[in-house]
Amino acid sequence: MIKKNRLFTPGPTPLLPAAQTAMASYGAHHRTADFRALFARVLADVKEFIGTKNDVLVLSSSGTGFMEASVSNLTSPGDRVLVLTAGKFGERWASLAKAFGCSVETVTAPYGETFSLEEVRRKLSPTIRCVYMQATESSTGVRHDVERIAELVRTSSDTRPDTLLVVDAITGLGTTRLDVDDWGVDVIIGGSQKALMIPPGLAYGAIGERAWQRMETAKSPRYYFDLRKERKSAAKAETAYTPATSLFAGLAAALDYVRQMGDGNLAAGRDALIANAELCAAMTRAGVEALGLKLFAPSSPAAALTAVAAPAGVDSTAICKRFRDQFGAVVANGQAEMKGQLFRIAHIGYYDYLDTVGVLAALEHVIAEATGRPVEFGCAVRAAQQVYAKVR
Amino acid sequence: MIKKNRLFTPGPTPLLPAAQTAMASYGAHHRTADFRALFARVLADVKEFIGTKNDVLVLSSSGTGFMEASVSNLTSPGDRVLVLTAGKFGERWASLAKAFGCSVETVTAPYGETFSLEEVRRKLSPTIRCVYMQATESSTGVRHDVERIAELVRTSSDTRPDTLLVVDAITGLGTTRLDVDDWGVDVIIGGSQKALMIPPGLAYGAIGERAWQRMETAKSPRYYFDLRKERKSAAKAETAYTPATSLFAGLAAALDYVRQMGDGNLAAGRDALIANAELCAAMTRAGVEALGLKLFAPSSPAAALTAVAAPAGVDSTAICKRFRDQFGAVVANGQAEMKGQLFRIAHIGYYDYLDTVGVLAALEHVIAEATGRPVEFGCAVRAAQQVYAKVR
Repeated sequence: MIKKNRLFTPGPTPLLPAAQTAMASYGAHHRTADFRALFARVLADVKEFIGTKNDVLVLSSSGTGFMEASVSNLTSPGDRVLVLTAGKFGERWASLAKAFGCSVETVTAPYGETFSLEEVRRKLSPTIRCVYMQATESSTGVRHDVERIAELVRTSSDTRPDTLLVVDAITGLGTTRLDVDDWGVDVIIGGSQKALMIPPGLAYGAIGERAWQRMETAKSPRYYFDLRKERKSAAKAETAYTPATSLFAGLAAALDYVRQMGDGNLAAGRDALIANAELCAAMTRAGVEALGLKLFAPSSPAAALTAVAAPAGVDSTAICKRFRDQFGAVVANGQAEMKGQLFRIAHIGYYDYLDTVGVLAALEHVIAEATGRPVEFGCAVRAAQQVYAKVR
Repeated sequence: MIKKNRLFTPGPTPLLPAAQTAMASYGAHHRTADFRALFARVLADVKEFIGTKNDVLVLSSSGTGFMEASVSNLTSPGDRVLVLTAGKFGERWASLAKAFGCSVETVTAPYGETFSLEEVRRKLSPTIRCVYMQATESSTGVRHDVERIAELVRTSSDTRPDTLLVVDAITGLGTTRLDVDDWGVDVIIGGSQKALMIPPGLAYGAIGERAWQRMETAKSPRYYFDLRKERKSAAKAETAYTPATSLFAGLAAALDYVRQMGDGNLAAGRDALIANAELCAAMTRAGVEALGLKLFAPSSPAAALTAVAAPAGVDSTAICKRFRDQFGAVVANGQAEMKGQLFRIAHIGYYDYLDTVGVLAALEHVIAEATGRPVEFGCAVRAAQQVYAKVR
């Protein structure tokens, strides 16, 4: 049977056709009025998409580049930082901060869970310069409570405004509500290959005033990721270094699409995109549970993706392989030491009803063959349909 | 919810991404060595795809253009021709033949059925110059028995070799087995926007020696569709008039894809494409019947598409509208006087498992809402999955 290339991975995600066309046809030089107009428009639209009054930057790098920038621009060697970690991306924050010579405190939650707010409160102290966290931890499918943690950072110590909150929302933006300014998030980070439906290569983010001030004294080395330099260039609708021009053209097309989803209003479109991910996720969770499988993150599941525990005695590597070989569907395995234990189905960005029931129907065959036990065909699909029908 | 543009129509069909890329990037002039090389390659590949030793032509027109060519090049005004008609495309043959002044005999089957071979035999006579038919009638979802009818034309009268058999296989090629040369089909016609997965704009076909001979005496007027002129040009790897160049680039990419489906063998790839359509169709028929719906062409269903009778009291126009509005899925209504009575789901070309179960799951919602009667969610999907699991 024909197998279309179908990404169900939490980034890269399925490409928006209008963005593909825009990328294929874009060829302007970056030091021209044409590109400056495109760049200015993208910055304004990203600002509206994030929903912030803060300055917005788009870097030509993956999301990890913006994560690094949030360490190198905001810390000095020896600074104490607090990393909230509950998965591979939380661990990345810790590695990054260590690489720049920070003294790293952590609040850790087991894989598949979110943090104890009480523990976060206890770890916050006047000497913590930055708190680093994820909005959604894509390695485990968990949604963290950014609003609550921001409130703790803001109120639980008299150290505020010295402690900055940096949120990696690379899979969070466009899949979960984030009132960045209201909650007092100092830096928020997104990536192009997630809810914005284009390939990897751009990272975007919003940076608040207190973070800009910190940069004046932060001494960690940075050059390509020097955010003050980017800000100065952006004020002239330019980038400091050569930007990934075609990806900007794609991003503009994707933001137009999101605006159309909101009938001309980009913020409404973003909310519709979030609602889409929430519905795909709710359908998928229902389907997975109807199949007798266990969610890997049952208590705080993200809408970005659904992580599913491999059934007893089955390696999730085999499940991912069956998905790919039999259906052309690329489902993500667990990462690092979680490899083999779970698989992950994404709902970030450009997914619709047919994608969602399709991957569940495929999952029924995959589980039947991987476990060797009978599966009632249609049971996962039906559960998903019941969720869908209720919302309709 | 996001609604992707999803064509389930029996042409145009979903586009092959590799063909889209090839079309977007192709810009050669048509009177160059570059285009001649592309054109020669496409002709050779189309020949292998059809599976014929006859000369192959590709015209820059829709399939109807090649149908017209098969009338204007093979008949003279006043010629008696026999049209086998069981739907809107059979009726098109009759209209075309009349437009060129032929005296048209018909064998008619009711919509949803195929011809009585006995009646075909009775209507064949020494004075019939051409027999025109479809391989699959896309307006009703019926597969006609080309092999049997070819045999009748070949053996049932002593008029052979004077009676030519012309088969519109526009939706037939790549969805049903057609041993053109063995069966003695004089002209067979295909279209680009069907099993070959590119947009409309090219028609292709194979023309046997007896048809070429007929053209020497046929007096109907033709110019753009003068096949002898095209044949002469093709011998020099050229087209008589300006060809739709980017579509040729797309066709080349699509034929490469089919060859890959056959592990390097184009004929094997075509057979795999046919098997794909057969499986999608079998899954869809099982799903439709599990939902309690009636097939419009139960006795001789084509693999190209499944035509489904609208349930009692429901206009199929409303069904098509729900598909489009709610799921972004474009399903075809009945044509002309069949409008409102049936809807059609295609399996031609680039469809996979997820497409097939996805449209069936959507159909369950559509039928539940259109009829107002309860539907057991998952029942159509399950029936399709059972068909799939048996083949695996």
